[in-house]
Amino acid sequence: MTTRFAIAARAALLASSLLILGTTAAHARDAAALRDQALTGDTVAWDLVEGLTTEVGPRPAASEAEARARDWSAAKLKALGFANVRIETYTMPAWVRGEEKASVIAPFVQPLVVAALGNSGATPEDGITAEIVFFPTFADLQKAPAGSLKGKIAFVTHAMKPTQDGSGYGAFGLARFQGPGVAAEKGALAILIKSIGTDNHRMPHTGTIGWPKGVTPIPAGALSVPDADNLERMVKRGKPVSIHLILTPKRLENQPGGNVIAEVPGSDPKAGIILLAAHLDSWDLGTGAIDDGAGVAIISAAAQRFLGTEKPRHTIRLLLAGAEEVGGNGSDAYHAAHKGEKHALVMESDFGADRIWRIDTKGYEKDQATRTALAAALAPLGVVPGSNPASGGADVEKFVEDGVPVIDLQQDGTRYFDLHHTADDTLDKIDLAQLRQNVASWVAVLGVVADAP
Amino acid sequence: MTTRFAIAARAALLASSLLILGTTAAHARDAAALRDQALTGDTVAWDLVEGLTTEVGPRPAASEAEARARDWSAAKLKALGFANVRIETYTMPAWVRGEEKASVIAPFVQPLVVAALGNSGATPEDGITAEIVFFPTFADLQKAPAGSLKGKIAFVTHAMKPTQDGSGYGAFGLARFQGPGVAAEKGALAILIKSIGTDNHRMPHTGTIGWPKGVTPIPAGALSVPDADNLERMVKRGKPVSIHLILTPKRLENQPGGNVIAEVPGSDPKAGIILLAAHLDSWDLGTGAIDDGAGVAIISAAAQRFLGTEKPRHTIRLLLAGAEEVGGNGSDAYHAAHKGEKHALVMESDFGADRIWRIDTKGYEKDQATRTALAAALAPLGVVPGSNPASGGADVEKFVEDGVPVIDLQQDGTRYFDLHHTADDTLDKIDLAQLRQNVASWVAVLGVVADAP
Repeated sequence: MTTRFAIAARAALLASSLLILGTTAAHARDAAALRDQALTGDTVAWDLVEGLTTEVGPRPAASEAEARARDWSAAKLKALGFANVRIETYTMPAWVRGEEKASVIAPFVQPLVVAALGNSGATPEDGITAEIVFFPTFADLQKAPAGSLKGKIAFVTHAMKPTQDGSGYGAFGLARFQGPGVAAEKGALAILIKSIGTDNHRMPHTGTIGWPKGVTPIPAGALSVPDADNLERMVKRGKPVSIHLILTPKRLENQPGGNVIAEVPGSDPKAGIILLAAHLDSWDLGTGAIDDGAGVAIISAAAQRFLGTEKPRHTIRLLLAGAEEVGGNGSDAYHAAHKGEKHALVMESDFGADRIWRIDTKGYEKDQATRTALAAALAPLGVVPGSNPASGGADVEKFVEDGVPVIDLQQDGTRYFDLHHTADDTLDKIDLAQLRQNVASWVAVLGVVADAP
Repeated sequence: MTTRFAIAARAALLASSLLILGTTAAHARDAAALRDQALTGDTVAWDLVEGLTTEVGPRPAASEAEARARDWSAAKLKALGFANVRIETYTMPAWVRGEEKASVIAPFVQPLVVAALGNSGATPEDGITAEIVFFPTFADLQKAPAGSLKGKIAFVTHAMKPTQDGSGYGAFGLARFQGPGVAAEKGALAILIKSIGTDNHRMPHTGTIGWPKGVTPIPAGALSVPDADNLERMVKRGKPVSIHLILTPKRLENQPGGNVIAEVPGSDPKAGIILLAAHLDSWDLGTGAIDDGAGVAIISAAAQRFLGTEKPRHTIRLLLAGAEEVGGNGSDAYHAAHKGEKHALVMESDFGADRIWRIDTKGYEKDQATRTALAAALAPLGVVPGSNPASGGADVEKFVEDGVPVIDLQQDGTRYFDLHHTADDTLDKIDLAQLRQNVASWVAVLGVVADAP
């Protein structure tokens, strides 16, 4: 504990000295006013996420609803005064949910709440019936002998708990990312996982599967957490447990997808673009409020505050990417089309709408002045400097790989995985005060970096 | 506030004097030990509700699952040592949920989460499409002119909030109990209500409808709270809102239903029966953990503690009633068959598994000694004497009408209507410590009344 306290004390000292430094720079003073206006009275972000969830709703990748969301967003961004608003299209396969039903048929009889995982294979229309093989963890599934799941349904649980930084997702999410592929390779007829989530509602968490090359997708579903726990109780009574499962999703080739782009034009064409990314697509079960209507709203509202001021040195560009949820076809298309343009900085908002609690950076290791100014601008919002390098997110990762500097404004993820990829991802889960603190944090960062040399 | 404080002070004074009195009676001393054992270590209640939700699950009135629940419960009660365990059957109509889908088709397009209300009429298989007419409250629906809803779908919301005593249900529940009948009488094609609930999950709350005599049931559904709020936001944008609705429930005549009866035999056949009631049926969406697996578990576990002791003077009889959710066919059948037997006291547990916070009585107005002893026995559990007469519940109401004394152990209902009649009514919502406090409270009351003259 001593070491931790020493680090915290050093950080506090640093922050207080930085605050003085930050308030002496001319552009930081402007940004402080913009930041504080956003914190107390921003209406742009709420109006955007309220509108997107009410007037469009769910917007699965490459669907007709995602196309409506592009038109809707482009019209809103134009009305807000953004320049160079445009839709850039591409084609991609779409995965479309079908019927989904699961029920235990022995030794007890009762229905289970299930949702197909993205890119799941399909059962016949009248379903399959098979005995389950229970794995308490993904590691246990990995250890199953080759061929041992032939004719069976694998059932994998986990013990994911909420964490502020969301690190539980990477660790426990393997049951979803890789579990179906591993089960298929071992001969399983299908796989059911306990939802990768931290709630106790009858809300399955969907999400995409990464199938290994050459593996034919099997039906793969998520049970809600209470259903998985109930099934586990049945298993522990010691008799074979059999399930009837219907999942009939479809894959459609060559569907239209696209990104929405908008800009706050900069004064120096050679300065490079500051790219702010969020994604416009959502899963089909909810209305995509926290994932990622909030991100769309936060970056748009923050950038919009710079439209009414003197031109920033850098162009601030919004990327509302398509198809993030199913593999990033939108951000790949953006990178392919725009990697030749100079990008000075990339940032992404895609972790809900709860408060920013930490800032991480990468590419500013030798630029103490900027790190100092960032910490100072964010300190009034309760944001602390982190000690990990920023990594960006799915929609900017190719630029991060290219070596472009990146700043992460880390959102509080404590309740994020209660809602993530469920029907419960709806507007009412967004807290206005925390949404505004997000906008204010982005404004604070832009205030430091938008005019930087 | 002065009056309230004075009453509270008087009650506290009374409770402290009663405590001394209560601990001097021989049977109260026995009961105190039984009560305290239940509070710290009861396993019977948890095992019953865990077993019922895991091995049976949802058990709609007059279904095959309700029959399985009767057999399951009778076997468990026999194994626990109860006497005269038996199933008493009757026949009744059953209402069976069908397909259910709702979506907004104009001015915006998105799906809504809906569940048919119990006794709802059916749409054609391909559904109906109509414009909605919005009513912010049930009273507004009542004011609509005769015939004004012809060809329309009524949409009724409310502003129900959690209350400890559950009183919001009676007030706001009218939209469900009576709303469909009122809408049908005014010519509506169908009705959608905001769920009678206090949560913000995509979980419609079902529940039964009381159709007026002569009114033909129309399709009637509950939207989840977030869906109703989303629909209301659409309405408030000012353009006509149209909905496509599919609800295809069925009614089956002459289905088998039944009650389970079990007893702790008393020593004095003339003393009259103490009847403890809960209901074995549940709605179909959840697994019936809080409604009313918990009640079944609480009364069974409390009565079971008297099996190992000297015979109580009164016979303690358990009634696990069928079909409470759809009108009380089980309790009606019990009353018809057993009203000729002397019932000395009736009690019911049907409000979840959260802690008992208050005791109300009726029929003890001239019996200060018993009221004193009850308050004393419950005080260590944090239970306060209430100032309202007890009213019992649906499964004992005919005996209350007959003038049989009744005691209500009031459960904390603050979160009850987050879960009530939804898919979320599952085992994980039950808190073991609070469940045990319920059992201990019932033991405390039985300790006072079981040997009473």
